[in-house]
Amino acid sequence: MSTPVAPPTHPALLTDRYELTMVAAALADDTADRPCVFEVFARRLPHGRRYGVLAGTGRLLEALPRFRFGDEELEALREQGLTDQRLVDWLADFRFSGDIEGYAEGELFFPGSPVLTVQAPFAEGVLLETLVLSILNHDSAIASAAARMIAAACDRPCIEMGSRRTHEEAAVAAARAAYLVGFASTSNLEAGRRYGVPTTGTSAHAFTLLHDDEEAAFRAQVATLGTGTTLLVDTYDVDEGIRTAVKVAGPELGGIRLDSGDLPTLATHARQLLDELGATKTRIVVTSDLDEYAIAGLMAAPVDRYGVGTSLVTGSGAPTVGLVYKLVERDGNPVAKRSEGKASVGGRKNAVRRHDRSGTATAEVISAGPIEAEDGDRDLVVPLVEGGRVLSGATPEQALAEARAHHERVRAALPAEAWALSRGECALEIMQS
Amino acid sequence: MSTPVAPPTHPALLTDRYELTMVAAALADDTADRPCVFEVFARRLPHGRRYGVLAGTGRLLEALPRFRFGDEELEALREQGLTDQRLVDWLADFRFSGDIEGYAEGELFFPGSPVLTVQAPFAEGVLLETLVLSILNHDSAIASAAARMIAAACDRPCIEMGSRRTHEEAAVAAARAAYLVGFASTSNLEAGRRYGVPTTGTSAHAFTLLHDDEEAAFRAQVATLGTGTTLLVDTYDVDEGIRTAVKVAGPELGGIRLDSGDLPTLATHARQLLDELGATKTRIVVTSDLDEYAIAGLMAAPVDRYGVGTSLVTGSGAPTVGLVYKLVERDGNPVAKRSEGKASVGGRKNAVRRHDRSGTATAEVISAGPIEAEDGDRDLVVPLVEGGRVLSGATPEQALAEARAHHERVRAALPAEAWALSRGECALEIMQS
Repeated sequence: MSTPVAPPTHPALLTDRYELTMVAAALADDTADRPCVFEVFARRLPHGRRYGVLAGTGRLLEALPRFRFGDEELEALREQGLTDQRLVDWLADFRFSGDIEGYAEGELFFPGSPVLTVQAPFAEGVLLETLVLSILNHDSAIASAAARMIAAACDRPCIEMGSRRTHEEAAVAAARAAYLVGFASTSNLEAGRRYGVPTTGTSAHAFTLLHDDEEAAFRAQVATLGTGTTLLVDTYDVDEGIRTAVKVAGPELGGIRLDSGDLPTLATHARQLLDELGATKTRIVVTSDLDEYAIAGLMAAPVDRYGVGTSLVTGSGAPTVGLVYKLVERDGNPVAKRSEGKASVGGRKNAVRRHDRSGTATAEVISAGPIEAEDGDRDLVVPLVEGGRVLSGATPEQALAEARAHHERVRAALPAEAWALSRGECALEIMQS
Repeated sequence: MSTPVAPPTHPALLTDRYELTMVAAALADDTADRPCVFEVFARRLPHGRRYGVLAGTGRLLEALPRFRFGDEELEALREQGLTDQRLVDWLADFRFSGDIEGYAEGELFFPGSPVLTVQAPFAEGVLLETLVLSILNHDSAIASAAARMIAAACDRPCIEMGSRRTHEEAAVAAARAAYLVGFASTSNLEAGRRYGVPTTGTSAHAFTLLHDDEEAAFRAQVATLGTGTTLLVDTYDVDEGIRTAVKVAGPELGGIRLDSGDLPTLATHARQLLDELGATKTRIVVTSDLDEYAIAGLMAAPVDRYGVGTSLVTGSGAPTVGLVYKLVERDGNPVAKRSEGKASVGGRKNAVRRHDRSGTATAEVISAGPIEAEDGDRDLVVPLVEGGRVLSGATPEQALAEARAHHERVRAALPAEAWALSRGECALEIMQS
């Protein structure tokens, strides 16, 4: 695999201005160093979802050591009117020195789950808010949608191919998040380079249209990519396309791709035709605005692989998961906003997942106090950063592989009703105190 | 303003793998150099929207000269199994040499509008597909949603503050797109640095909770940011918060912010109280999950500024606008996919916007043939790149300012019914031939 490549941007200015004005004001009245605990959690799951999947922790830990204010960043701040000298001096010296703990990447989360806890002097903790939320909200939205697609697809592989329908850098993160929950591969080459996600892809309609006829296009593709390639057969007439594909590649043809039309009908017909032509092992790949519901609707159809684009990278109706970053403790005492609508629970939380004797998860126990342990409890909060130092020595690729394995384990413990696609209640009982 | 800063990533690998396998196969059968025209257009507008706003062209033109395959990129491709030597050699030499034209950034678009046209040898044109679509789909989705918010807000300024609810780099592009259509400012510091978007922000609930009481927090903020600052008054009790704010800052207090509760009622009450306290010029800023409908619902309330986050950066229900990149001409002849569901119209298109005598836009005329000019027609397609060279010498900041001015002009020509928020038909007649 590729050597780890640093992610692209200097992250310090990927930050809301008010984080810096708060630091400035806190430095001025000597509250900047008050010991604080910030907690990241979701007030609810979007859209009647039954669980959420935490993703992005690995990307956050990649970014944290690079979160610094160099001369160029400080100059940019000055040009934006942030000229307070005490602030500028403090930022120039800034190194995060606090502790971070949280749910392991790939873990499931529920309303109130303390997925990340930052313990640091106020100014250091508040400064990380925007970046923490940007990364976790985006990546968790994609992972949470992708997990539903994986569930709907059962054992059929899913391919992530949504790069063109989201911001070009979000596309890399989306490919990573999809792989994390079990997607087999991505179309995105940078996700291959940065995270070792397997990349796949063969051809588009443009390649057929480039050629004088479909047969010439298929011959060119097979000559270069081999008979194991996947031929796109729906540029003109699908039947004709399939016959031409098998004529060109022989019955060893790896796959055909269908990208339009009524897919259940078309796939069934294509399977019959392929079988008649002796291409009994040729796979059928479908790709046409699929989401988890369309995937479920193809369960009875002879489809071998799903390519998913738009709905994946846009979170299938929930493009953000609404994680918030709240001050819950100051000087060792719980604090919380009290006005109507957005009240929250103060105090640093602990969390365990409770399981029955068969190993099936039953409850998420979340408490600002001690949690009395029961058989089958699993601690959910693990240390991630201590004294500013990222504890894991894993490369970005290793971290992703670990998260993928962790996710596979924890999803296997969910009760069967968690896999329903319909809107419903949380898959587990939430016990909050 | 800041000197222009290069956008972050080397863009060449922000690309779907199949673009490269198509290049490899086309190089092998000598079709890679066939002259081609690719066109970017939307088949429909999302969600019954009445118009779309094209955004991202400036970012694309920033990225184009850097779209190269250096040693590091080629090595990454080899590690992903793209080892075809002819492909690798071709990529190493790749410089885009074609022509690009399209709608000016900030222009309105409708179904079928040819917003970008790439004329190049097949291999060069196909290689740009993913990046072109990622940038234009994302940025246009944000701009199209933001334009509806600007319309709903009438003359009241809107502030973009959604960074935490989208990917950290998408946040910068979203702030840029929002500013393009008329947002006054953003919370995102990097958007300030990279594009000169004005940045704003004062404090969050955490700043109040950090202090022993609200008064201490307000005193600290006013001491550092001045009496013109905006104080967040809803951490505890709003009435009490407003009284304390005016007590601390005096009647010259710049603004108060309300971030929860029933905003129309709360704003009306807050205005009365502020006026009673003599703070008659203190502005009321509201920020709480606003979208264009909530903004419209506050039209009768005494609100001075809207802060918009989640719904903006997620495209208010339409996080992508579905732009596609299709081969429409090869060797000078129109080509098009013909199978069911996704048929398209071949041939390179021209487009004009038709206006009545009062200057109000009436129709989008799109044709693969010549368009007979009428009085009040405006050509929509302008040259952007010639022989691989970006024509505009504008800095990223200048390009954004030009797009913002262009957008303001063209939206002023829309008929009044275009501003309705309800689902409906296109604001203009679409005349396609």
